[in-house]
Amino acid sequence: MVELNPSSEPSREVPDFSRGVAGLLPAIAQDQNSGEVLMLAWMNRESYEETVRSGYAVYFSRSRNKLWKKGESSGHLQKVASIHVDCDADAILLKVEQTGAACHEGYRSCFFRQRSDDGWKVDAGRIADPS
Amino acid sequence: MVELNPSSEPSREVPDFSRGVAGLLPAIAQDQNSGEVLMLAWMNRESYEETVRSGYAVYFSRSRNKLWKKGESSGHLQKVASIHVDCDADAILLKVEQTGAACHEGYRSCFFRQRSDDGWKVDAGRIADPS
Repeated sequence: MVELNPSSEPSREVPDFSRGVAGLLPAIAQDQNSGEVLMLAWMNRESYEETVRSGYAVYFSRSRNKLWKKGESSGHLQKVASIHVDCDADAILLKVEQTGAACHEGYRSCFFRQRSDDGWKVDAGRIADPS
Repeated sequence: MVELNPSSEPSREVPDFSRGVAGLLPAIAQDQNSGEVLMLAWMNRESYEETVRSGYAVYFSRSRNKLWKKGESSGHLQKVASIHVDCDADAILLKVEQTGAACHEGYRSCFFRQRSDDGWKVDAGRIADPS
């Protein structure tokens, strides 16, 4: 890994939460081992800092309007292996060790539907009871 | 693949662009072969429909406020292999065949920076001149 040259980087926060609507940036969780994209959720600065501090994925729930430790009630935790940020510093990628199902509908990944010319099809099996 | 039971699904659009701020949903591009997450961009209904119609990734550029066919000027096109949607129908995953670099800074993936305890490090090499 190469150290960034500070002089070539704009002096802004990384990740740059000021670029998100209401301070929220999209965060992708990817299975560290299989590479499967598990889910997309949202992070504000506080949830990001709690993710870094705890080593487990903590998002901001837009529906509940509060921090949400993924798997806190289901046990389907995401242990963070590495954290990545994109070129514009306004999207986050977590590589995680996923316990059980990432999706509350019981699928390993939330992206269990695939488009076909005659509609959306489920292309995965449930591995847990929907919660 | 299993057909969805229409009676168990709410009667809403998939993807559901009404769930996005200003009608925009996050769209993840993943390399079909390596599984690498290449970038995150935004789609409105029009860009999604153009992606489906053309077979190449078309996003909505928030900075230019218009449709943006990925790679139109650089040649770094994304040929769409499959389209997936998440449980809430408010995030899109494209599996793509990426020509060249997905990132305008010349990296294969926009997520070329990884967090370490002493700062962000570039963990990939450039494969193209930054454009």
